[in-house]
Amino acid sequence: MSTALFDYYHANREAHLQGLLDLLRIPSISTLPEHQPDIQRAAEFLANEFRTMGMKNVEIIAGKEKQHPLVYAEWLEAPGKPTLLIYGHYDVQPADPLNEWTSPPFEPAIRNDNIYARGAVDDKGQVYLLVKAVEGFFKTEGKPPLNIKFLIEGEEEVGGEHIDEFVEANPDKLKCDAALVCDTELFAPDLPTITTGLRGLVYTEIEARAAAHDLHSGMYGGAAPNPMQALAEMITLLKGPKGKILIPGFYKRVKEPTKAELKSWKKLPFDEKAFMKKEIGTTALVGEKGYSVLERLWSRPTLEVHGFRGGFTGEGAKTVIPAVATAKVSMRLVPDMNPKEIIKAYTKYMKKITPKGIETAVRILSSAPASVVSTESRWIAAGAEALEQVFKKKTVYMRSGGSIPVVGTFQKFLNAPSVMMGFGLPDDNLHAPNEKFHIPNFYRGIETVGRFLQLLGQ
Amino acid sequence: MSTALFDYYHANREAHLQGLLDLLRIPSISTLPEHQPDIQRAAEFLANEFRTMGMKNVEIIAGKEKQHPLVYAEWLEAPGKPTLLIYGHYDVQPADPLNEWTSPPFEPAIRNDNIYARGAVDDKGQVYLLVKAVEGFFKTEGKPPLNIKFLIEGEEEVGGEHIDEFVEANPDKLKCDAALVCDTELFAPDLPTITTGLRGLVYTEIEARAAAHDLHSGMYGGAAPNPMQALAEMITLLKGPKGKILIPGFYKRVKEPTKAELKSWKKLPFDEKAFMKKEIGTTALVGEKGYSVLERLWSRPTLEVHGFRGGFTGEGAKTVIPAVATAKVSMRLVPDMNPKEIIKAYTKYMKKITPKGIETAVRILSSAPASVVSTESRWIAAGAEALEQVFKKKTVYMRSGGSIPVVGTFQKFLNAPSVMMGFGLPDDNLHAPNEKFHIPNFYRGIETVGRFLQLLGQ
Repeated sequence: MSTALFDYYHANREAHLQGLLDLLRIPSISTLPEHQPDIQRAAEFLANEFRTMGMKNVEIIAGKEKQHPLVYAEWLEAPGKPTLLIYGHYDVQPADPLNEWTSPPFEPAIRNDNIYARGAVDDKGQVYLLVKAVEGFFKTEGKPPLNIKFLIEGEEEVGGEHIDEFVEANPDKLKCDAALVCDTELFAPDLPTITTGLRGLVYTEIEARAAAHDLHSGMYGGAAPNPMQALAEMITLLKGPKGKILIPGFYKRVKEPTKAELKSWKKLPFDEKAFMKKEIGTTALVGEKGYSVLERLWSRPTLEVHGFRGGFTGEGAKTVIPAVATAKVSMRLVPDMNPKEIIKAYTKYMKKITPKGIETAVRILSSAPASVVSTESRWIAAGAEALEQVFKKKTVYMRSGGSIPVVGTFQKFLNAPSVMMGFGLPDDNLHAPNEKFHIPNFYRGIETVGRFLQLLGQ
Repeated sequence: MSTALFDYYHANREAHLQGLLDLLRIPSISTLPEHQPDIQRAAEFLANEFRTMGMKNVEIIAGKEKQHPLVYAEWLEAPGKPTLLIYGHYDVQPADPLNEWTSPPFEPAIRNDNIYARGAVDDKGQVYLLVKAVEGFFKTEGKPPLNIKFLIEGEEEVGGEHIDEFVEANPDKLKCDAALVCDTELFAPDLPTITTGLRGLVYTEIEARAAAHDLHSGMYGGAAPNPMQALAEMITLLKGPKGKILIPGFYKRVKEPTKAELKSWKKLPFDEKAFMKKEIGTTALVGEKGYSVLERLWSRPTLEVHGFRGGFTGEGAKTVIPAVATAKVSMRLVPDMNPKEIIKAYTKYMKKITPKGIETAVRILSSAPASVVSTESRWIAAGAEALEQVFKKKTVYMRSGGSIPVVGTFQKFLNAPSVMMGFGLPDDNLHAPNEKFHIPNFYRGIETVGRFLQLLGQ
């Protein structure tokens, strides 16, 4: 391990932290159109980092109307060395409910060695550690030890299609030997982890329409169909009492994990009681009967309702039967489920269970298949070794229940396996109030990525 | 019929209309705290009308904190004549969804002989016709033909308790022979109608809490309980497939209408197809099997869900499992259901059907029993006669599915029967966008109330 590089990382910890706080102050919420200028600012922030450190051909790539820009940068002056495509995303989830944040989501605060901010761990903190890890080579050795392409997107949280379209259209520009995706977590604090599988996602909106206008529940209750009631009934019909999803054909292509994989999961330091009581803060776990918690989260498909729009939800009482109501429902997919087949089966089933007097329409907001990567490749091996050297512990392999669609995209269009190394913790409150990133993991992330690049460049 | 009075009403139609438009411009939405100043303005508007016409002891009666004021006015200089308590409400429902209004809700617009505005018919238009009917006596005869007490409230749309507390505490001040309640509708255009029964209401909020914080549906979906899903399931369990409400004991005290009443309802000009297709604008009616539409609306209890709060309902996709979700659910009660018993049964049932991992809490936002009035009394007879003389048609009797809790309050604390004469139409869009009031009915309302007072004062 080059001492100069790691000395540099150590000496610049405070500067790296301050730089991350600056990035976190930009409210680059991708799903809200009013934050479009912040999306642009975040992209420019990163492009500026790349230019300053010495990366070449730095571009902010605008997409079609309403798409958010990609930030691209390359350094390809290491002939004979492999090329690594480094991915992250600068967009963040909405911050609501705001009143549940201890400190404001876009005014990063440091408490107990954690940075609290929307995007702290998902994914700005991890994008920034990639940037600083590469910068260290320019500062100490004048250049990275291998060829590097950065591709940072601004639509990850909205299942945006810009990066998919761009990767599909530019396989030569993005040609690489492997990808590094830094948007996952450690299985437990201090336990170096590589993620080898991700669930896919189909996110839908179902609109139910019953009447030509809103109705008074006194005057019409007892005769007029209620679309809110209809959606509640339809959502109830999506799952059986034992947690099984009732859409016909839903499980048809589900591939069970290998016995070795299932065995390795049983060895992970997973405390079901602590997961339930401390991490989630609830009194009972739910889900499909006959599967362990980790199986339910990683290798079984699931379905959730995220919200209902329509009717009256303000303070007090309004006795309305709404004319229209909408529910947001998503499904997590596992290998080898086909999103198109699932969308078809879901849409057909929803039509079938629509109550009389109601008209429903299903909209698909995003979809991506699940993906699994092999632990046998040299890229994964290098990642595991870098992690072990920084964390001083044996690397474990896990899957994630979340979705990183770009991993499938890189595999499909670039034939590139992804190394998913992430430095978040299970209790980092992704997508929730009080999202955080543990500062020591930010520093270890920089060092691990630096070491990973050294190993690949040897 | 005094020609002078009716000549006066005719000559002043335009001025009366303009006065109503002024009242409709005040956005006195009772459920939204930010409209508190508008509530006050609407109360002062009415107090000013009473003072100007010659009513005595005009008062704006402030309630406890957060209660909206009552407007009281009296004229008691007709010894030996009966005393009539005249009721209405100056508060209105919220106007959302705003984008479905053709013209802004608080900028009254006249189209096709209708006034379009929030509160046009419910209840400002009807309050104002009461005011102008009484004013006509002062202008033409110098005084009303009987003793009058006005009591106008500002909390009807939020089931407010101010008027209940005030009536209970001031039976001497409010002593009267009968009440006139002008907050109902004609069964059909041009068909003079008295309403003889109202459903009661229990309005609830049920909060479901599952976790200590919002969760990412990828990371936790398959193990974490989802309170939004729980509420959907619980609401589904409130009704059976044939529209029967499944709360144990719910129907125990339900009193069927008399055979004569049921027979008279069958004679009303009710076109079920037009009601479904034109008035509601839907493709099928729902409700309890074995009862006619009018029975389901008037003499059967019902239950509706009005909205779900929590999770993500904005544009786009947020993959959240919310920590907390709330549903608004109300029940309409019929004679002789006891609101306290129903609340107890509902709360108990909700606890029982709460899924594991979820904690629920039921809040009661308002409650009032149903009420029926006898068609035999001289007060109802005078109302029916006044209506017939103005409308030139025989008066019919109907019930209403809505709730006017104050009718029960007047009966209970003042022993006063209420004459419910109203001039709205079934398609006036109460509580919905594009609420309207048919201008000819506004004028006929003034004349009918004028004639009613004459008859009572004879």
